[in-house]
Parts: sequence; structure tokens; C-alpha cells
Amino acid sequence: MEALTRQSLKLCPFVKNHARAVKDINGSKLVTQATRCPIMGPAIEQKRTYVSSTSTTKAQAVAHAEIEDQIEFIDHQSNEHSFDYQGLFENDVSKKRADNSYRFFNNINRLAREFPKAHRALEDDKVTVWCSNDYLAMGRNQQVLDVMAATLKKYGAGAGGTRNIAGHNRHAINLESEVAALHKKEAALVFSSCYVANDAVLSLLGQKLKDLVIFSDELNHASMIVGIKHSQAKKEIFKHNDLKDLEERLSKYPKSVPKLIAFESVYSMSGSVADISAICDLAEKYGAMTFLDEVHAVGLYGPHGAGVAEHVDFEAHRLAGIKSPNFKTTMDRVDIITATLGKSFGTVGGYVAANRNIVDWLRSYAPGFIFTTSLPPAVMAGAAEAIRYQRSYINDRQLQQRHTNYVKNNLIDIGVPVMPNPSHIVPLIIGDAAKAKAASDLLMDKHRIYVQAINFPTVARGEERLRITPTPGHFNDLSDILIDAVQDVYKTLDLPRIKDLEAIGGLCNVGDPNYIAEPNLWTEQQLNYTQKDLNENVFNPVIEQLEVSSGVRI
Amino acid sequence: MEALTRQSLKLCPFVKNHARAVKDINGSKLVTQATRCPIMGPAIEQKRTYVSSTSTTKAQAVAHAEIEDQIEFIDHQSNEHSFDYQGLFENDVSKKRADNSYRFFNNINRLAREFPKAHRALEDDKVTVWCSNDYLAMGRNQQVLDVMAATLKKYGAGAGGTRNIAGHNRHAINLESEVAALHKKEAALVFSSCYVANDAVLSLLGQKLKDLVIFSDELNHASMIVGIKHSQAKKEIFKHNDLKDLEERLSKYPKSVPKLIAFESVYSMSGSVADISAICDLAEKYGAMTFLDEVHAVGLYGPHGAGVAEHVDFEAHRLAGIKSPNFKTTMDRVDIITATLGKSFGTVGGYVAANRNIVDWLRSYAPGFIFTTSLPPAVMAGAAEAIRYQRSYINDRQLQQRHTNYVKNNLIDIGVPVMPNPSHIVPLIIGDAAKAKAASDLLMDKHRIYVQAINFPTVARGEERLRITPTPGHFNDLSDILIDAVQDVYKTLDLPRIKDLEAIGGLCNVGDPNYIAEPNLWTEQQLNYTQKDLNENVFNPVIEQLEVSSGVRI
Repeated sequence: MEALTRQSLKLCPFVKNHARAVKDINGSKLVTQATRCPIMGPAIEQKRTYVSSTSTTKAQAVAHAEIEDQIEFIDHQSNEHSFDYQGLFENDVSKKRADNSYRFFNNINRLAREFPKAHRALEDDKVTVWCSNDYLAMGRNQQVLDVMAATLKKYGAGAGGTRNIAGHNRHAINLESEVAALHKKEAALVFSSCYVANDAVLSLLGQKLKDLVIFSDELNHASMIVGIKHSQAKKEIFKHNDLKDLEERLSKYPKSVPKLIAFESVYSMSGSVADISAICDLAEKYGAMTFLDEVHAVGLYGPHGAGVAEHVDFEAHRLAGIKSPNFKTTMDRVDIITATLGKSFGTVGGYVAANRNIVDWLRSYAPGFIFTTSLPPAVMAGAAEAIRYQRSYINDRQLQQRHTNYVKNNLIDIGVPVMPNPSHIVPLIIGDAAKAKAASDLLMDKHRIYVQAINFPTVARGEERLRITPTPGHFNDLSDILIDAVQDVYKTLDLPRIKDLEAIGGLCNVGDPNYIAEPNLWTEQQLNYTQKDLNENVFNPVIEQLEVSSGVRI
Repeated sequence: MEALTRQSLKLCPFVKNHARAVKDINGSKLVTQATRCPIMGPAIEQKRTYVSSTSTTKAQAVAHAEIEDQIEFIDHQSNEHSFDYQGLFENDVSKKRADNSYRFFNNINRLAREFPKAHRALEDDKVTVWCSNDYLAMGRNQQVLDVMAATLKKYGAGAGGTRNIAGHNRHAINLESEVAALHKKEAALVFSSCYVANDAVLSLLGQKLKDLVIFSDELNHASMIVGIKHSQAKKEIFKHNDLKDLEERLSKYPKSVPKLIAFESVYSMSGSVADISAICDLAEKYGAMTFLDEVHAVGLYGPHGAGVAEHVDFEAHRLAGIKSPNFKTTMDRVDIITATLGKSFGTVGGYVAANRNIVDWLRSYAPGFIFTTSLPPAVMAGAAEAIRYQRSYINDRQLQQRHTNYVKNNLIDIGVPVMPNPSHIVPLIIGDAAKAKAASDLLMDKHRIYVQAINFPTVARGEERLRITPTPGHFNDLSDILIDAVQDVYKTLDLPRIKDLEAIGGLCNVGDPNYIAEPNLWTEQQLNYTQKDLNENVFNPVIEQLEVSSGVRI
């Protein structure tokens, strides 16, 4: 009988049509219909009788459950139940909650006229922001805001189209001109974000250059990892900033095989810095192209804020001003530079700077560039203004470095484990996801200071941290308050100090006897240059008719 | 001797290290070093002697050339020359030029206070824009501009971080609240663009749902094609809007296999419209999820501008107002809706609307959401205002439709081949890449009208077109000028008319005797509703503390 039932049910139009309804809509309606079925009807009746003989009150509920079980069983037999999509989504998110990597977003409304303050949900609930990537406070720069307001008023809210269809304009032309001039490259191309730029460029290179091998630093940003994955190119992940490992991997391939070394200048979660010149040497030796992400360095390094690749030849660029020095600089040697408009340049968007061939090729083939709406005119105009401002003004980045040094030195003095690095990032090692979140919450709730906890997957498990980012607006009075608050939080939560990490042989280079400290990128001499030590004013006139990318029709 | 030399040179460390330097840096330095080599030295000397016996003045130059030739030869033999990157880039771009798919961008600066006018490079060189995707002219809407200006002033130029680190704020919360309310879904998530949203969602689904099969309409947008490719899921491309083909493909798989049907409501280059309800029926029957891109429909369809999925149940939604009708609507049946903020909502960005489970899952796992800077506060505030405005105001979309009908009917009357469709897109078929560009150029240069030519790869070769997009601001006086201009261009360039396409049996459904016209999505009755026929004002109060996505901390 049971076998016959199963067989019949496989063909039953009632079950086929309602199997999903059982779970989704209305069980009781299903039961009503099922009792009318010549096969299900008697089965249900039999169950009801059984159930009512033991319990009358729960009879109907149990009957539902029984039927659902039975239908589930039948479906499974005939492979006719749907995949449990919602179950998968719920289960995946539960995993995040279980391992403390579930993210709670803080509602932070940064106030342009009270920088670095922000209000939370309520306007009078104010906190000091110590973890934004608006590194140079350009998000509240009056020149940038004025240009944006005027552009908004004159040219409207949005671009209204892709670059090819109604979305190409003077704002895009000027912005790409500024970017190219900043990096002393022939051309530039603006994307929705640097995430999109990295993904688009790396994936296209892999797809178009047959047999390309991509050599990627193990700490590269997610956007580069995703781009390399999408490229479907062969990849070699080299140890972080390890030139020996990189060279060993490069040397495995004939020189004629196309290669790309993809790396960053400043790694955002550790503040470590790549040796760009040495990597260019290796690239030259083994016939590789170089792809450098300067997302966390533009604005902050170099006499004109072009990033670490400029900083490496600081004196030459300082003296050359807007022009190129009369030798092949490190910046010249990097084939492709990508960076963001959303951090030191205060707005949003990303870009690529390279020679004309590369830029025109990306412009012509990268779907992530072609098939998307241009950034709003006001955003592009604001970003161009921010670049122009920072190219010609050295003081903000010097002040940012001085504030960084003050915070780092004072925290180290009180035994807080600041991960050592030569850059502007101040990572405080905690080494535990729950404690990092607790520290962030305590800073916020008790001290009205916002520093986001950085947990897995952004950093490795066991290396959880607070990441502090001083700006030119974080003067020493604010730093003193921060330092006291951190002191209190480390004490209250009994977080590990430098001596604790020394006792375990070191963590993230803190308390590690074998770690050799690198000097700061900014030397004292560089920090003491005044505005007039910049050789010439690098403000470009706004060149209305400039053709940056070939193919651009004015 | 020669064979021995070659063999030795293969192993020569000198050549290995300098092969690239020959081309790149300094030939003469190389020669100096080479003369010291026990093998190269005599060879160079021999060449020099030979050259100097015929010409003394050019001796050194020729020697360089000879050595370079020889080294090039050796390199090739030993596979030790670098890959020719620049050659590849140049060659790829040349292909674009050769097949007329190389893109020339028009410099178009749309003027907020002279809509739909724009200036080109010079401010007094003005044209009328007839191809922007600012479909409802919200880019110049005063309410939107006022909100953006106020937000810019108060909250600054940019968000300053990712959503997890300092970039989550009331603007994001309010915008996601508006989007969720628009689509009557539990939650929403904002991305940098809908390109990013589509890519992120589709690729993540494929990566996380083992054995997922994605059923994709053959005319889907590039962002969906890319997302599906990145998903690495098995894919079934079904014929455009062909339900029979879709069902045949669905029926090949057991119901328990996870499936996703990915499609658009309005296809932007043809204006064709999907039968969303029928696709949902198939999804239910075969246990598939549905993913609907409403990029070219939001704002324009439905009593509240939620898109075609709302339009399908027009009366129910009109009467229900801000609430959900008391049955499962077509919009409810779609699992995932994506759309843009950059077209009818006038700004930039994209989003996903779905149930809480899906949104929280995307929020927790999609790298394209997690690892990128938030949109600027002013952009998010402007987009939210645009949605709020359009949800409560029916007149703009009605006017847009009336203007579309006027343009379509008058162009058809004079024999211009308008590709038939039930939507707001007006594609004029030309069928040749060079002619389409010539038509666009002539409209611009002679008539001061900007309509971009749409060529391969955006449309198939042989189906090149001009794509016209009327807005509420394109009143009949402007349309009359456009129609005369198109008439002139078709005459001047001898472009194919409807009768010509009839003679060849039809092209893109124009002049095709077998094509059955679909009625317009907007009926006359719907076009005649007045503002007070919308059941209630759907303006939401701005809910400061609303928690849209689970996990959001206020």
C-alpha cells in the first residue's frame, strides 16, 4: 500500500502544485484541499484518528506536521522539492554570528563644520571620529565644498548616462587631466570606485593577455584578489613585502611569459610599505609589468601627494614641481597606478593612471568602465579640486604625519601595542575578536570616541585590532583625550600590553625581538619643508579642451 | 663557431641581465660592457672592423644595431625577451578602429536650469540632449538639488569610509528605507552602482549555492553577464523573452537543483519588456529564485514608480498606496530586485531590494559591498529624495509616456523605422555602424541635437541604431524640431525607411509581417489618473532610527 501511495503521489498534480505552498503560505488551506484527495484523504483521516486518540487539543497541529513530513518525504523521493534558499541564507549568516565576524554598523554622521566630530542617530549625540579614511579632512575642505555646490547648482545632481552615452563631460575630462598630471602619466581613467578599477583592470589583463601570470602580495586588498580571481590568470601569491619570495617565483618562468606584479604601496590594515623601486627592478629583470595600488598613499606621500612612488624620489619631484625630473623616476617605472578619490581626496570614485596605450585599451574594453553611469558632475569637480589643492599644498600631509607620530609615540610610552610601521596608520593590537569589539564599544559608549574594531576577514584571526587614523584636524589636545581613553580601555578590559606580547615572543611585530624597525617614510627634513620649498605652484589652469584619453571627442 | 657562440650565449648571465636594457635604457652602456665579454667582445670587434671598412661615421650606430639584432636573435632562441605588452594594447585598440567600434566620447555638459539643453566644450555651444538616461529629469529637480546642497554643506563631500568603518550613516539608512518601501520589500542594500550590485549578487549566489544553474535572458545587460561569468555557476542562456525556451531549459533539471532566473523588465536598447508574472510562474513550478533588473523601469512604471513588477498590478498598488495589497503581488513574487539611482532617480548608485535574509546575507558576504567607500552623504540624500518624490507624484511618468508616444507616432508617420516596443525607449533602426555614427554627427553638427549612435558591442552588428529617450521636459515643440531633424538626416544620408525594411522582410521587428505589436504598458486609463487618484500620499516621514538591514546598529 505504501509503495503504491508513493508511486501515485509522484504523478499527483495536487502535490506538484502545492509542495512549495506547504512551507510558504498556508498549511491549513493545503490540508483542506488534501482531504479531498482520494489518496491523501484517507491517510490524513488515519493520522487524525490516531492523534485524537492520544490528544485532542493538539490534533490539528500535529496533523499539519505529519502531512508536511509526509509531503517532504515524497518530494525527496521524487527529487521534486525546491532547494531551500532561505535556509542557506540564514545558515550562512548564523555562521558569522557564531564566529564573531557578524558586522554591526555604527551610525556615524560626520559634521563638515565640526570636524572631526560626528553625530550618531540623534543630532546632539556627538562623538569624535578617529578611524575615518578621510585622511586629509578634504571632505570638509571649503574650496572643495564650494566647487561642488556650484557644480551641483549649474550641472545638476547626476551625469545622466555612461561615458559613451551623454555622461562624458568637462568634469570627467578635467578630473582625468588632474589625475594624469598628479602621477606624471600620459593619461588616466576614472571609475565608480577603486574597487571597480582594480577588479576591472586586473580581470581584463588576465583575460586579454594569454598565459599571463599575476604575482600578488598576500596582503593585497580584496578588490585586487577579486580582480585576479576574475582574470582567470595563473597566480603566484608571494609573502608580504618579501622580495626574495617574489624573485624566486618570478624566476620560475621564462622572460617571454607575460607577467604582472600586483601590489600596494601602503597596506591599510598594518601600515606596512612596499619597496616599490626594488619591485620595479625585479619587474625589469624578469620582464613583468607593475600594477601599484596607491589607495592609502595618494595625498599623503610625496611632495605633491602623488603617493609613495613619488615619495621615493622626494627631492627630484620637489625640485621638478609640475614637470617630470630628467631621469626615469620610480613613478615612471610603475606601469599602472590605481587609487581612490574617496579617502585623501575626500569624495568618491577610483582611477587608473598609465600611458595612453593602456588607458585607451581599458577605456575600449573594460566592461566595468563602459557599462556604468558616470560619477555626478559635482563629485568629479570636487575630486579634481581636492587633487589640485593637495598637489600644491604640502602642509596638510606634514601635519597629518606629525599628529600620527604624536599619537604613536604617546601610546607606545604607556605600553599600548602599536603595530610598528613607517606610515600614517596606527594599528593597536588586541588579538581577539570579541575583545576588539568590546574595546570599540567602550571607547564609544564611555569616551565618545569612535574607533571601529577590525576583525576577520579584514585581518587574520588572532590579529584583531583597533585602527586609528589621525588627520590634520586631530591636534594634540584631541590626541591627549584619545590616549587617556585608550589607556582606560586597555586597563578596564585587561587588554594585552607591549610587555605581554614580548612575553609570548611578539605578535604583529610588536614585542618581536627579531623585528627590525623601518624609519618613517617622512624624514624630519621633509617634514620641515615650507610651502615655498615646493619649487613652483602646481595649480594647473583648468584646461577646458584638454584631450586626455585618445578618442575623446571634445 | 656560430653554433658554439649561440649555445654559450644561452647561458650567459650578461645577456640575461641586459637583454631588456638594450631596448629600454642605454645601448652604448651595454656595448661597453659587452666588449669586456670573452665571447661578445671579439664578435663586436669583428663587426666594428667590418663596418669601419665601409663607413667610419656611422660605425658606432651600426654596431649598436648589429648587437641589438644579435641579442634579439639570441633572446628569441633562449626565450628570454620580454612579452610585448604595448604591442598588444595597441593592436587590440586598432581592431576597434578597424571595425568601427572605437568610441569617440561627446563632451556633453547638461545644464540643470536649461534642461534638456547642454553645452559642449564651450559654454555658448549648446545642444538639445535626446539620449540621456535621466529619464524623469530628476537630475535638475529643485527638491533634489536643495536636499543635496544642504547635505553637502552639513555633512561634507564624502562618506569617508566603507559601511563598516565610519561610512554608515543616516543617509544610507534612510535611502535603504526608501528603496525597501518603494519595492514593498523587507530590506534593501545600496551599492556603488547597479553594475556593481548585479555583479556582486550574481557572482556571490553562484559561489555560495553549490550546483546553482543560472537561467539568463540572452539580452541581459553586461553587468549581469559579467556577474554570471564570475559566479562560475552553470548557465543556460534562453532566447530573449522566450518563455517556451526558458521552460524547456528549466525542465531539464530536477526541482531540487538550485536555480536562478535572471532577467530585466525593460531591455534598454530595444525597449522590449519581460512577462514578469509568467516568469514567476515558471520559477515557482521549477523551484527557481527570480532576479529582476528594473534599472530602466524604476521611476517610470507602476503607480508609484517601482517599475514594471508594480505596473503589472497597477490597480491593486494604486489603491493600496504605501501598503501592500492583500494578495501576493508580482512584485512580492520576485525574490531579488536590482535597480539604479543613476537614471530615473537622477543621481548615481545602485541597489538590491529583497527580504531580510537575502539582504543580510549580501551585506555580510558580498566583497563588492563590503570593501568599498560608501556613496557621499549628499548623493544618498538626493537619491532618497528623488525616490520619495517620484513615489508620490504620478505626473512625471505620465508626461514621459505621452512625450514618448508623440515622438514615436510622428516618426512612424514619416516612415522612420522606430523599433516597436511597449515602453519608453525610441530606437531608430539604421543597421550600419558607420551610418549610425554619421547620423549622430549630422544631428549634432547641423541640428544641434545630441543622440548617441549605438553600435556593436552594445547592439548586434547590423542592428546599429539611434536611441532616443524623451523626458517630461521634452515637450512637443522640441519633439517637432527633433522629428524634422531626423527626417532631414534620414534623407541626407539615405537611411533605410520602414518600406525598405519591409522589402527585406523586416529588421528588428520593423517591417516584419510576422511581428505582433504589443500594447503599451501604460494604458490610456492609467495615463489619465490624476494625483488625487493615488490612494494616499506615500511620502514617508524620515525615520531617523529605522533599522533596515538586520545587524545595523543605530
